[in-house]
Amino acid sequence: MNDSMTLADAFQNSKYPIVGHGKRNVQVLMEAFEGTDADASSDMYGKGEIIERFQAKMAAYLGKPEAVFFPSGTMAQQIALRIHCDETGKGKVAYHPLSHLELHEEDGLKELHRIETVLLAERDRLIGPADVRLLGDDVACLLLELPQREIGGQLPPYAELEKIAAYCRSRGIRLHLDGARLFEILPHYGKSAAEICALFDSVYVSFYKGLGGIAGAILAGDAALTTRSKIWKRRHGGDLISLYPYVISSEYYFDKRIGRMAQYYEEAKTLAAMYNDCGDPIRTVPAVPASNMFHVQADLEKEALESLLVEVCEATGVGLSAWVQGLEDGGSAYEVSIGDRFAAVPDDRLRQAFALLREKLQEDGYRA
Amino acid sequence: MNDSMTLADAFQNSKYPIVGHGKRNVQVLMEAFEGTDADASSDMYGKGEIIERFQAKMAAYLGKPEAVFFPSGTMAQQIALRIHCDETGKGKVAYHPLSHLELHEEDGLKELHRIETVLLAERDRLIGPADVRLLGDDVACLLLELPQREIGGQLPPYAELEKIAAYCRSRGIRLHLDGARLFEILPHYGKSAAEICALFDSVYVSFYKGLGGIAGAILAGDAALTTRSKIWKRRHGGDLISLYPYVISSEYYFDKRIGRMAQYYEEAKTLAAMYNDCGDPIRTVPAVPASNMFHVQADLEKEALESLLVEVCEATGVGLSAWVQGLEDGGSAYEVSIGDRFAAVPDDRLRQAFALLREKLQEDGYRA
Repeated sequence: MNDSMTLADAFQNSKYPIVGHGKRNVQVLMEAFEGTDADASSDMYGKGEIIERFQAKMAAYLGKPEAVFFPSGTMAQQIALRIHCDETGKGKVAYHPLSHLELHEEDGLKELHRIETVLLAERDRLIGPADVRLLGDDVACLLLELPQREIGGQLPPYAELEKIAAYCRSRGIRLHLDGARLFEILPHYGKSAAEICALFDSVYVSFYKGLGGIAGAILAGDAALTTRSKIWKRRHGGDLISLYPYVISSEYYFDKRIGRMAQYYEEAKTLAAMYNDCGDPIRTVPAVPASNMFHVQADLEKEALESLLVEVCEATGVGLSAWVQGLEDGGSAYEVSIGDRFAAVPDDRLRQAFALLREKLQEDGYRA
Repeated sequence: MNDSMTLADAFQNSKYPIVGHGKRNVQVLMEAFEGTDADASSDMYGKGEIIERFQAKMAAYLGKPEAVFFPSGTMAQQIALRIHCDETGKGKVAYHPLSHLELHEEDGLKELHRIETVLLAERDRLIGPADVRLLGDDVACLLLELPQREIGGQLPPYAELEKIAAYCRSRGIRLHLDGARLFEILPHYGKSAAEICALFDSVYVSFYKGLGGIAGAILAGDAALTTRSKIWKRRHGGDLISLYPYVISSEYYFDKRIGRMAQYYEEAKTLAAMYNDCGDPIRTVPAVPASNMFHVQADLEKEALESLLVEVCEATGVGLSAWVQGLEDGGSAYEVSIGDRFAAVPDDRLRQAFALLREKLQEDGYRA
């Protein structure tokens, strides 16, 4: 083993990387535009056939009256929550402590919109109906992220979702879906996107997670919400003269991969089982994935797990992960998202990689 | 003349459209990516070679320590003004009554950043040193737009700019440049971008006006400003996982057209003279352009001017404008921006078009 080889390099150069669709390079754009009519007119500040057609297509798919294309989910979701606050005359929204808005947006919701937040449930578990019953009358909107990415993509039973939605409706609390990975959970629930979205007043979906596009988001809801959202999109600086580079690529990758979500889901369950077969000190969260994603957690220091993954990669050509995160309790973890690459990994290589991983983990040095 | 032919249609189908670079269609993206390395890695949330290299290139060009790429000028400028307010502890900014922020951004600066605005000078003239001396101590920043687009792209004498800058510096008022059309005024001033930018604390430039790119903006200034601007970019939802569709196309069109600004400027002066030779009831503002742009104003009702332009277009093939705006005083106007198309119009066709326009304008029915 080459000590100077980092895990990122090892993964980057591995013959069989098993997560993701492929490299995030310019080819992703090239492929999406290959068959595009070069004479097609650009959208102009949110108007024009390219953007309006895709918005209508996504509104229909999500079962909502209207949909608006945004450059990012950060922008779309802050705006949805702001509108729910303005329409209800309330100044608070509730979400999970590990929500994207709480972790990754530099407090845009608070800094730009002066919206107060209520953190619901604990960091290591999903929001349930009992949590929702604690919400006060001053809460305009509850945001649910399905699946809850930062805890491995966990998903509540569908009956719980329905219970939460019914309670919110009865109390005049709006319900917003952070559906960054909505497409990815449809096989698990066995529901259409429209059926799930019917439980929510507004919905955001993304085109560069499971679908593997470049960037871009859709916010869907009733016409009052989408009309207001366009004004806020302009205010945020997101109403670009031309969004077609994202619109066209989003539609291309939606069409290309929306039918593969069941395959990714099955593959994620297969792969998680292989991890769990290794036994202590390694496991997946959740134990059985609910989508194309899960987390791998280990009672090992970050550096120890990195060395192991580099060793497996160099011996078998299988790249299990490009990175490892150290945890506060001294353990380590990484996220796994299944895409097109998994199907290209030969079975024997995969078995070889996990045999080696298991063997190494069972050596004394790696015991928990 | 076909009564059902609209001016937009006539222009769209004209053999010699004389304004702009060409159609805003998907080919604009295709051309920019033709020679691009498909293996080049995407930028990732503002990091990576593609975006960092272009930012460094623009920082050097503008003579500022740092530069940050933004999806839009709306976002970049609000953020610059917010940072100037935060750093000075003041809550007001000043700009022209026809500033982009006042007219075209749905009051994002006020709604998102709670910044108060002072409108300086009158709507039909530039901000001068005397106006700036009226600013109170509670003003964090003065925004100057060079050229002032909504009054035909007028530009103050350079000595006035220097006077304004010196005064602001002496009073601790920050100076921000709305340089949406900065590249276009360099030939008139006979200065480099860096020389002009040296008068300002922060600078925004755009890549889809005179340069003809798809979308995108640069905000340049010192490292404290650019570092803070990245946090606000995240808050606004503009820190996309991938901005390379705009970065690569912006660089492509910058390289392609930055050397043509003097040509566009000369052509704008030629064309403005042809309009002014028509005499009443038509004229240009300014009388002599200071960049590639000017406005055409007529003492004619919108519909009358439209009919005239359609007639000229159908008789000579020369498309002078795609639209006309009705003015409050009963007159009408349109904006002219010179790009690549002008050079492709045969001289005799142009002379023929203006001979017809002049003849028609001098007919009794069109007299003011």
